[in-house]
Amino acid sequence: MSLDTTEETTKRDLALDVALQNNARAVERMLDKLLPKPEGPEHRLLNAMRYATFAGGKRLRPFLVTASADLFRVSKDRALRVAAALECLHTYSLVHDDLPCMDDSPLRRGQPSVHVAFDEATAVLAGDGLLTFAFEILADRTTHDDPAVRSELVSELAIAAGPRGMVGGQMIDLDSEGKELDIGAINRLQHMKTGALIIYAAEAGAILGHGSTDTRHALKGYAQNLGLAFQITDDILDAEGDPEKVGKELGKDAEAKKATFLTILGSERAKMQAKMLSEQAVEHLEIFGDSADSLRDVARFVVERRL
Amino acid sequence: MSLDTTEETTKRDLALDVALQNNARAVERMLDKLLPKPEGPEHRLLNAMRYATFAGGKRLRPFLVTASADLFRVSKDRALRVAAALECLHTYSLVHDDLPCMDDSPLRRGQPSVHVAFDEATAVLAGDGLLTFAFEILADRTTHDDPAVRSELVSELAIAAGPRGMVGGQMIDLDSEGKELDIGAINRLQHMKTGALIIYAAEAGAILGHGSTDTRHALKGYAQNLGLAFQITDDILDAEGDPEKVGKELGKDAEAKKATFLTILGSERAKMQAKMLSEQAVEHLEIFGDSADSLRDVARFVVERRL
Repeated sequence: MSLDTTEETTKRDLALDVALQNNARAVERMLDKLLPKPEGPEHRLLNAMRYATFAGGKRLRPFLVTASADLFRVSKDRALRVAAALECLHTYSLVHDDLPCMDDSPLRRGQPSVHVAFDEATAVLAGDGLLTFAFEILADRTTHDDPAVRSELVSELAIAAGPRGMVGGQMIDLDSEGKELDIGAINRLQHMKTGALIIYAAEAGAILGHGSTDTRHALKGYAQNLGLAFQITDDILDAEGDPEKVGKELGKDAEAKKATFLTILGSERAKMQAKMLSEQAVEHLEIFGDSADSLRDVARFVVERRL
Repeated sequence: MSLDTTEETTKRDLALDVALQNNARAVERMLDKLLPKPEGPEHRLLNAMRYATFAGGKRLRPFLVTASADLFRVSKDRALRVAAALECLHTYSLVHDDLPCMDDSPLRRGQPSVHVAFDEATAVLAGDGLLTFAFEILADRTTHDDPAVRSELVSELAIAAGPRGMVGGQMIDLDSEGKELDIGAINRLQHMKTGALIIYAAEAGAILGHGSTDTRHALKGYAQNLGLAFQITDDILDAEGDPEKVGKELGKDAEAKKATFLTILGSERAKMQAKMLSEQAVEHLEIFGDSADSLRDVARFVVERRL
């Protein structure tokens, strides 16, 4: 309490940085343990799955899983298994999105995309393998003693990632290149393409910890706002960022004549909107008291584009 | 008992034909009920998923699910849900296998493949959507009251379809074009690529019906032999069949210089082997008595290439 606000913020920023890095390493150790070793004649597939998974990244979604699981005192190992499953699913979506017939991105996280480092067929199969493996992890008894928890983890992830969630969002995104979209359509697209999985990440902890309906609503509300803030900041970055720092090709939205939050709102309003959403996200966390501080910090980090 | 063997066989053949067709229609009605309607801006994806799913086919795997579920007096609706989930998963594998970067097949079941009727990006996403949706169906409460059953259905399917199952098998298959494989390697490849899912189909009924370990072993043994017999007959068909009747391009194995059961065993021995495997399959069914007759007939049908 002797610290002034700026000092306090700096301290918390540093602490979150450390927590994020520690969590990323813990998730990677879990992924290394879970993903099949590249042995046997299918080693090419297993190598490609590992190549895609260990290419780095901020591991935001896994952090949301473990931070929300902490609110319910879920054991670290269980939380990390769900975090790893979600990261497999997220990675599959990147591998398929990068394919020549989709976004045609040769780079991902500063490295050649899977279809460049291996080949297209291997990239399709590595994505399929990661998607399938995510459900294998969740449904395994080790993830939770209660089969109702395992079953709900699978069910919610399948809905979030499926045709009315992430995959549907990617279809709309591809279809809308060169088309005019209003803010409502972009909102819906974003909710499906990236929002649903971020909401799942935050809710997963409550599922693992048998959280009440109230806590689940709170986490959902938080993640909905956070996801939107994240997407708006991502759109800004695509237009204004430095490719060296971001580690992927930028300007893809403009090239594909994609309507984004940025093209509709303009840079200034988009930035204000992201900040407002981040503040709204934090408001949902009140019922958790101080224990949700790391989730609060994440909301701040996201719009400052440190995540 | 007044019928001679030939007459009895003819009668059973007709009955199985009818049962197969009725079951195929029932599975299709269930799929129509479950698959999202092509509404909303993601309609292209949902149309492609339906196009792939309703392209026909013998629906062998769904039949195995419902026939094995009948052994345990599982309700028709539950069995049909699992059958529909498995057919979504099987269909996804066909859509991705047909892609230009994979087997490059313009035709499937006598119709243009999904990437021809729509485009490559839509085919990738439709496959992803069907794969994800299969798990959504299985984990939904409607599939079974017991969450342990739902969770096991998901877990076993993910293992059968994942990197150490179907997806791994497809990788080995692509990698082994032009390579010499011995009978052991082909056996392993077949077990992963097509066998694992056929075994799942037969076991699913026992999972739904809380079957004993003995009954599960029996169904697994049956399906292992059946799957192998099925694959050998498929290889023979690819080399010797009539494309008009089969509804897909044939001779792909020879074109890709793929080692198959046929290239190693030769036509005569391959046919004998398939017949022997079909007989071995039937032997596993003894513990079920007459109630497994339709599974017995399926084993006969498969090598007579009526399935």
